Amino acid sequence: MGFEEMWHDLAPVGRSDASGGYFRQPWTSAEGELRAWFAEAATARGLRLETDGLGNQVAWWDAGSGPAVLTGSHLDSVLDGGAYDGPLGVVSGLAAIDLLRDRGVEPARPLGVSVFAEEEGSRFGIACLGSRLATGSLDWAAARELRDRDGSFLPDALADAGLGEGGRWQALDGVGCFVELHVEQGRDLVDRGAAVGVGSGIWPHGRWRFDFTGEANHAGTTRMEDRRDPMLSYAMTALAAHKQARLAGERATFGRVSVEPNGTNAVPSRVTGWLDARASTGSALQELVEVVGRQAQERAGRDGTALEVTAESVSGEVAFDADLAARIAADHAEGDWPVIPTAAGHDAGILAAAGIPTAMLFVRNPTGVSHSPAEHAETADCLVGVSALADTLERLVR
Amino acid sequence: MGFEEMWHDLAPVGRSDASGGYFRQPWTSAEGELRAWFAEAATARGLRLETDGLGNQVAWWDAGSGPAVLTGSHLDSVLDGGAYDGPLGVVSGLAAIDLLRDRGVEPARPLGVSVFAEEEGSRFGIACLGSRLATGSLDWAAARELRDRDGSFLPDALADAGLGEGGRWQALDGVGCFVELHVEQGRDLVDRGAAVGVGSGIWPHGRWRFDFTGEANHAGTTRMEDRRDPMLSYAMTALAAHKQARLAGERATFGRVSVEPNGTNAVPSRVTGWLDARASTGSALQELVEVVGRQAQERAGRDGTALEVTAESVSGEVAFDADLAARIAADHAEGDWPVIPTAAGHDAGILAAAGIPTAMLFVRNPTGVSHSPAEHAETADCLVGVSALADTLERLVR
Repeated sequence: MGFEEMWHDLAPVGRSDASGGYFRQPWTSAEGELRAWFAEAATARGLRLETDGLGNQVAWWDAGSGPAVLTGSHLDSVLDGGAYDGPLGVVSGLAAIDLLRDRGVEPARPLGVSVFAEEEGSRFGIACLGSRLATGSLDWAAARELRDRDGSFLPDALADAGLGEGGRWQALDGVGCFVELHVEQGRDLVDRGAAVGVGSGIWPHGRWRFDFTGEANHAGTTRMEDRRDPMLSYAMTALAAHKQARLAGERATFGRVSVEPNGTNAVPSRVTGWLDARASTGSALQELVEVVGRQAQERAGRDGTALEVTAESVSGEVAFDADLAARIAADHAEGDWPVIPTAAGHDAGILAAAGIPTAMLFVRNPTGVSHSPAEHAETADCLVGVSALADTLERLVR
Repeated sequence: MGFEEMWHDLAPVGRSDASGGYFRQPWTSAEGELRAWFAEAATARGLRLETDGLGNQVAWWDAGSGPAVLTGSHLDSVLDGGAYDGPLGVVSGLAAIDLLRDRGVEPARPLGVSVFAEEEGSRFGIACLGSRLATGSLDWAAARELRDRDGSFLPDALADAGLGEGGRWQALDGVGCFVELHVEQGRDLVDRGAAVGVGSGIWPHGRWRFDFTGEANHAGTTRMEDRRDPMLSYAMTALAAHKQARLAGERATFGRVSVEPNGTNAVPSRVTGWLDARASTGSALQELVEVVGRQAQERAGRDGTALEVTAESVSGEVAFDADLAARIAADHAEGDWPVIPTAAGHDAGILAAAGIPTAMLFVRNPTGVSHSPAEHAETADCLVGVSALADTLERLVR
């Protein structure tokens, strides 16, 4: 079962006929199918499967002794997402093990392929939920209060999926280093003409909820000057965030909105927008969110609406392990595997923050488009990625 | 069963404990309860009930002969709406019949109280759907293709509610005039110090769907300048519509939005906003919508997004019957029942457009707030409204 065969197996799971995009939200039937597929792929390779109560999975090649080497990524997607973000790292991990065996490599230490749950935060709002719980950076006591958009609590979603509880996971205790391969979500590698790159770190980033409240009223009869319309405050804030990030070379996005009552002929009583913001340093991020918040507050004052800003999740800057990156790039001509930063969050960032030496490999994305049905990587580049990952793991398991 | 008792009976039906507002969407269980309540109230008064396949109802006092007099309104609500918009006219109609009987009035012609379905258009997007179908101004062949937000077709919603099909309704054939009593949705009567007013007409108004399409992408890694983000085009359009209407003394509202994929970490692929616009003349309305559309188109050009504007429903200006208004205001000192226009659409507008001489009575709303849980009218004013309606009907049934 080579890379292309595995990829073909996964292609239909959770795909929308309408858009061609993927709906692989955690603890849905599509994601359950992916978890079962991974268990089967592990069994077929004689790997030992460990699963925690949240559905995090590791398939172990129980070789040698000492600190283990872990690779992997996630199988869940954003709403209407692409095929590559997540699954490419998992499938490449399994394919890399096949390649190591073909090469006759006998690892001196255990080697695992991991799948972390709810990496995208598309259902319960906290990105990297699986790895945050598994590393202990988020407590189950806090996570169990999370609700999805339909109001379901996380423990109920887990129970419906036949799972248990999340929490610190002892499977990670013996891990000496972690390598995550991921499709690039930008065009750095295109510009540099390289199929594969090594990650230097992750920009600090986070999500802030902006709740604007006003007064519901009749859209026909209420004079414009008598309104307290939170849609106006929200609209100006979305434009201000874009402008601010553009000026500063950072990122700010309002991609999710919820309106009450959301009726055509009613001035809304409440508009909630979620700000996704990222910057090259922690202080720049703080400044960006503060400026947007200030402009939102000013506009709310003029609209007669009220604003509350809540930080839903904030991740500090992550610098990947420099020694590890150097070891990975060894034997490669300079520039073959360029070292690039990313503004996307990854489980690798959570494991790095938990003290595990961590590295990332990126595979070229011809358009740079991600979190979209149009997300793509050429098969030839994916196979270069598998080989690069196998080279890396071979060096690490010595 | 007096006005206050009827009002008390209706109070809990479809009310949200959280907001205190009403969710009386058509062909839901709450609205079914209201229809059953009306049937019971008719039976208790010995009125003959007619119901069409859509759930439109008339309770007839089969008196005398010749063209009938009809009064009434609707029982459905906007999402999270108020108690008065609609039900006040229905309950006042029944209470007015009680009052006429108390007075010993013997009508020389039939007198009916009507309830029209889906007046708000909160479920299938077309306001006054019930009266449009019943008068034949909308064909069932077109209406049967309508879908609600969950994708259900109108015929299926009707079947689920135990109803049949809509279409021209012969119950309206013998109607000689129609009077709708309604809570005021503004503060004209407060300013004039009057409990009751007579409607002069309805502003032309309509709903336009603005579909902005861009390109889904990763909110973290996609540079601001590489995006085609329809949220920005939408946001600017919502602000422009507000400003334009304010300058012109008209109304323009974006109170409903739908975003795809609506994920925090994804640049949206599509943002749809619904424009509710109203103006004092048809040409002013056309001008307003054109200006907003032009500004939206310009911004979409700058954002690299595409815009499609679709008129979902447009209602021309309605001038109520001047003779009828004069007859209603007769016997009242000038200024007691001031004559006022409204920017809200009503079934009365549909019946007037169908050639039925039509009038409206408005009851004072102390805050002017409507389409909101805070919508209110004082009981004393409501009772003045019942008495005014009874006076009007008494004159019309002679």
